[in-house]
Amino acid sequence: MKIAIAQVNQKVGDIKGNRRKIVDYVRSAKKQNADLVIFPEFAMIGGYVEDLLLNKNFIDKNYENIEIITTRSDLDSMITLIGTVSNDKFEKEHIINTVSMFTKNTMKVVASKDILDDSDFKDSKYFKRSGFSNVFKIHDKNFACVIADSPVSVLKNVEKASWLGVDVIAVFSCSSYYKGKTAHIREILKKAAKEYNVDVAYVNMAGAQDGFVFDGGSFYVAKEGVFKALLKNFEEELFIFDTDGKNVTENEENIAKEMYDASVLGLKDYCVKNGFKKCVLGVSGGIDSALTLAIAVDALGSENVIAVSMPSEHTSDESIQYAGKLCVRFGVKMHTIAINDIYNSYLKNFEKVFEGTNKDSTEENIQARIRNNILMSISNKFGYISLCTCNKSEDSVGYSTLYGDAGGGYAPISDLLKKEVYLLAEYVNKTAGSELIPEEIIKRVPTAELKPGQKDSDSLPEYNVLDDILEKIFYKNMKYQEIIDSGVSKEELDKVSSLIFCSEYKRRQAPVGTKVSRAAFLKNIQFPITNGYIWEHTSGDIDKE
Amino acid sequence: MKIAIAQVNQKVGDIKGNRRKIVDYVRSAKKQNADLVIFPEFAMIGGYVEDLLLNKNFIDKNYENIEIITTRSDLDSMITLIGTVSNDKFEKEHIINTVSMFTKNTMKVVASKDILDDSDFKDSKYFKRSGFSNVFKIHDKNFACVIADSPVSVLKNVEKASWLGVDVIAVFSCSSYYKGKTAHIREILKKAAKEYNVDVAYVNMAGAQDGFVFDGGSFYVAKEGVFKALLKNFEEELFIFDTDGKNVTENEENIAKEMYDASVLGLKDYCVKNGFKKCVLGVSGGIDSALTLAIAVDALGSENVIAVSMPSEHTSDESIQYAGKLCVRFGVKMHTIAINDIYNSYLKNFEKVFEGTNKDSTEENIQARIRNNILMSISNKFGYISLCTCNKSEDSVGYSTLYGDAGGGYAPISDLLKKEVYLLAEYVNKTAGSELIPEEIIKRVPTAELKPGQKDSDSLPEYNVLDDILEKIFYKNMKYQEIIDSGVSKEELDKVSSLIFCSEYKRRQAPVGTKVSRAAFLKNIQFPITNGYIWEHTSGDIDKE
Repeated sequence: MKIAIAQVNQKVGDIKGNRRKIVDYVRSAKKQNADLVIFPEFAMIGGYVEDLLLNKNFIDKNYENIEIITTRSDLDSMITLIGTVSNDKFEKEHIINTVSMFTKNTMKVVASKDILDDSDFKDSKYFKRSGFSNVFKIHDKNFACVIADSPVSVLKNVEKASWLGVDVIAVFSCSSYYKGKTAHIREILKKAAKEYNVDVAYVNMAGAQDGFVFDGGSFYVAKEGVFKALLKNFEEELFIFDTDGKNVTENEENIAKEMYDASVLGLKDYCVKNGFKKCVLGVSGGIDSALTLAIAVDALGSENVIAVSMPSEHTSDESIQYAGKLCVRFGVKMHTIAINDIYNSYLKNFEKVFEGTNKDSTEENIQARIRNNILMSISNKFGYISLCTCNKSEDSVGYSTLYGDAGGGYAPISDLLKKEVYLLAEYVNKTAGSELIPEEIIKRVPTAELKPGQKDSDSLPEYNVLDDILEKIFYKNMKYQEIIDSGVSKEELDKVSSLIFCSEYKRRQAPVGTKVSRAAFLKNIQFPITNGYIWEHTSGDIDKE
Repeated sequence: MKIAIAQVNQKVGDIKGNRRKIVDYVRSAKKQNADLVIFPEFAMIGGYVEDLLLNKNFIDKNYENIEIITTRSDLDSMITLIGTVSNDKFEKEHIINTVSMFTKNTMKVVASKDILDDSDFKDSKYFKRSGFSNVFKIHDKNFACVIADSPVSVLKNVEKASWLGVDVIAVFSCSSYYKGKTAHIREILKKAAKEYNVDVAYVNMAGAQDGFVFDGGSFYVAKEGVFKALLKNFEEELFIFDTDGKNVTENEENIAKEMYDASVLGLKDYCVKNGFKKCVLGVSGGIDSALTLAIAVDALGSENVIAVSMPSEHTSDESIQYAGKLCVRFGVKMHTIAINDIYNSYLKNFEKVFEGTNKDSTEENIQARIRNNILMSISNKFGYISLCTCNKSEDSVGYSTLYGDAGGGYAPISDLLKKEVYLLAEYVNKTAGSELIPEEIIKRVPTAELKPGQKDSDSLPEYNVLDDILEKIFYKNMKYQEIIDSGVSKEELDKVSSLIFCSEYKRRQAPVGTKVSRAAFLKNIQFPITNGYIWEHTSGDIDKE
């Protein structure tokens, strides 16, 4: 049997455009004699549409475009499976997440989603839990479809569908990337195919939406555990193959490459789909803005990246020099706007109000906010999107200025720990085969340069210690005592966990950024801002008041 | 029977403090010979704790403090019902939302939550749906407990519990305020009590958390439809009454008063619980900053409100004069920092980069961002919280400057439509019995004063038209054609709906504010930022490509 997997990159809300692309791909698959073409979860409406699902006209438009597909008489001999949304057959006021089968000018809902996704998205706000899988025959093979996102949900659904005794299970996903996920899902489904003696087609969305990166990587694994199709990661692709054709082999996993590619796609699709051709960012001569610039150049092209150097009296000569060198290496235009006189103008105006006070972080924040005002002004004047260069280690502990460096239209590296920033910077240079990011930038000691001689480690633990703690809290879900037992000092853990809670208010106002971990701020992690909890090992002691 | 309703204002995460308050109230109820004392949903951990629910130490601490309550031997003769969280008895990895009964030094879980709240909160992310209600006897009466938040969920649960044939149903809530809710819940439960022939105790949390206002207003309604207890709105209260005692009568509903009180409590609790004693805000001489100042004065006291007038060359004499008059009337200290020379300093530095371009909204935004930088600097220097004065009509259509007037630590009026801003301003003056907010401010034509002769209506429909459209979209959930049929022009509806979608990115970076409607941004409404949907009446036409 010839199957076409249409790993599309759809645009949220653009139902008409998405439907047209679907029809084009079906036609193309038909020309190549496919028996079946499969589109991922949400192929019709795009993923994730959030509150558009509450708009009745939007749901009507979804149906109208489904109807249009059934009228395309040239497609009548094909079988097409598309991720759609539908009203529940019996409780019509509820929306369910479905797979629709199109053939012979009819449409039939053949599956609905059982395990809702409340980690990345608010599925339970919009969808009624459902979960039926009709068995249907194509040629001599019995098929069942399931809709699932997380690896655990995918596995549970595949196991359940295997009880139906089918030959092929098609998994429909619009599931977001996190470090290591792409290989993980392949591995578990290869195992499941063998265990349940069933072929598995995994069809995932490609493309990015508001920082969620749908990583593609669709595949078809036969019950023997061999791959018959392996689609590209992070790219739209129509792939047609014969289920009796030759086997294909997997590429070796490259974590730095996939995180970098995810970061590029996250930014690129945010810009393209929102109509931004160019971006602007501040370059400090540090590693964060250097990596952000590299990602921006790969996403938009060097001619579309505008760098701004904004030195103050605290900026070292090296910083200015490194920033310049970086822009030359990447072929990026750099403006220089010194902030001293604007800064002094603020200070002069504060003389009366600040009388009798000492310099403190206030004056540091003023500088950071001046820089953001400059970047936003260039953004407003020329229609460029301004990029925030904060990383996750900083965001975790609030080491940034709200409305200053924490601001921007998009934050390409906001889910990268500092050590991952270095990892990707080295990947950039390795891939280029040259020091695109000057070695001096990679080697230097991190500094915000907001006061004389400042180093990040004056306020924070060293980044290797900080990142270790953050991984243990956010990725390994370790309990307090387990972290202490793993060798972290109580003092540093208490400081970091307290900073995490205290800086929630800043993260709530952070720009959208690319998710590359299981636990991204704004997307997956949300603490209360007003928070009286002190994280500690519960003692078991009963106090006696 | 003597029942004590403990309508507490708990602090999120401060389990130990919350438990101590619970024990104090139980002791106080015991002294007054109560047979039973009831605390609301989440009385132990506070509402809403978000991702703290994923922290295993936090859950441990919850248990530890539950354990402590059972050891208070002086409480052994009382029956105490407390909203808690528990592990599911059979699936121990799941957390459920429960009511725990304490008596004779033991604790028993007597009810769990069935209908999860995915509108205000992400219940489905944290809780397993459960829903049992044990029947238990106190003196000669059979009781059942249910946990529910929205009026519909409350009703469904009460109906279900009535099938158990009990005498009293206790409803445990930690449910947030919206316009009209307080009277609505009383009315429907009065009706339900009669219909199901059962007494109903409704126990709601008081206090505010990150802009959610738990409105209290707990009550006890007998099966005859008469009230035996009516607790205050928006305030902590321990209220003890006899179920055979005399009836109490309801106050008349006053929408302006309750919205104003909610706004004051929202700000007050955010400040108090986060340790802010003072606030700072910009006063423009317009209605929004005037109402924000009034709310701040009622929340924190006039001596704790610092106003800043920040005139530019576009600021009219009247604006400066009105702002001054406002501050005098409220007894608030006002600083004046003119922004002209800072603004000119920016322009001078942009000369080269902006060469050959015309003045546009960029220059307006620079002014707004300078003002925010000034307010944030005062905030940073003195530890005051800075207040954002944006209202919901502006936020809906993005009529604000990101990192400018859209910034701030808290947004007291962000869920008030412009017409509600006027309503509350008039309420302030009526309550004061004098023109606390100068009549000139209420009467003047809204203007941002960012360029010569500017009026809000140059960029937006008149506020009465805009508010009408916003109410129809967000509160009445009307379809496109229904709104047109109601008399709104297609041109204005298309403009407003397009602005709503286009400004989602600004709202994502907005500060937390007080929810006073059913549909507050950041809390209830979230559109995709990247959004290809054009809201329109679906035509039914099938295009022929």
